[in-house]
Amino acid sequence: MRRFIVLGHRAITSAEFKLDDLCGSTGRLDILLRCVNSAFFLSHGIRKDVEIVLMLLGEPSPPKTIRIDGSEVKYLNPDERSTAALIRNALLQKGEGERRCSPGIYVSERDYSEVLSNVSKESKMYYLKEDGQDIRDVAFGEDSTFVLGDDQDLSELEESVLMAYEPKKISLGPISYHADHCVTLVNNELDRKQ
Amino acid sequence: MRRFIVLGHRAITSAEFKLDDLCGSTGRLDILLRCVNSAFFLSHGIRKDVEIVLMLLGEPSPPKTIRIDGSEVKYLNPDERSTAALIRNALLQKGEGERRCSPGIYVSERDYSEVLSNVSKESKMYYLKEDGQDIRDVAFGEDSTFVLGDDQDLSELEESVLMAYEPKKISLGPISYHADHCVTLVNNELDRKQ
Repeated sequence: MRRFIVLGHRAITSAEFKLDDLCGSTGRLDILLRCVNSAFFLSHGIRKDVEIVLMLLGEPSPPKTIRIDGSEVKYLNPDERSTAALIRNALLQKGEGERRCSPGIYVSERDYSEVLSNVSKESKMYYLKEDGQDIRDVAFGEDSTFVLGDDQDLSELEESVLMAYEPKKISLGPISYHADHCVTLVNNELDRKQ
Repeated sequence: MRRFIVLGHRAITSAEFKLDDLCGSTGRLDILLRCVNSAFFLSHGIRKDVEIVLMLLGEPSPPKTIRIDGSEVKYLNPDERSTAALIRNALLQKGEGERRCSPGIYVSERDYSEVLSNVSKESKMYYLKEDGQDIRDVAFGEDSTFVLGDDQDLSELEESVLMAYEPKKISLGPISYHADHCVTLVNNELDRKQ
């Protein structure tokens, strides 16, 4: 299993946004949408062994945590707008605990600490960071979780919470990349090592 | 200089499309839009040393060739919709020869053979192909051009035209990737080798 946890520091936590203005009106939810594309899409299908957790941390009611499970997901298309519509639908689901919104898509109010705590029980944690070890020199086990920010790095507090799980810091190259490009590069490296 | 030539086999060649339905109404122009994002965007700016040539080969008036020069381009944002608006604007420009539509964005009726002929005078050609040599084992010169299809491989005819320029076939890994992910992986490899 490969898992990506992406922190959307200002990502909107209500369904009150326009699909026509994803860049401007959603607290950069558009970045997270592109990460979904990078996480799942192959030329000939969807990656079944991938899960992505989008942490929406913006106004008006943070946190909203969207989990997409590649082994179950349906109705996912590669474009930003249709993925945004799925997320908007998820944000409309009221209730308690983690709720299934559509096949393979779940929403909850789990916060960052709870998400990390749950995941780290079964998965080795990796922190994408410019000063980390080159990913090409790292061996990966069966279950790997990669934590990254949107267009903002993790805050000091977020980083300190993560460091409690002793993540391995890994870097993807000599330049700093957009989050979705990072996901593509991680997937490629793990494809090569499997 | 890095250059990507992406063939949009069914990509629409008029401005008569809706920004709200990029996946359904544009002959998969959405794939080319994501390639533009992958070609240019870094965390802290635009890649100046990259050019992308989008070959729109669908109805009603193929070919339309959109060239985006990273050293000049302005008003480029990472989302699909705003890039689509720039392309739509380019498709509205009437005239002859290559016309500047907005800073760094040009449109022409140059066909595939002419594009390759022009580029190959100064650039080594590479053909992204599953059975090629692993990109990690390839040395690159100063000026490299990468040719790839959208969601369809190059046709036999397109491949034979390209082969006249003796491109090196390169592969990106054990799995077949979406075109935009291919662009991201090529950029990363060249970043590492520079």
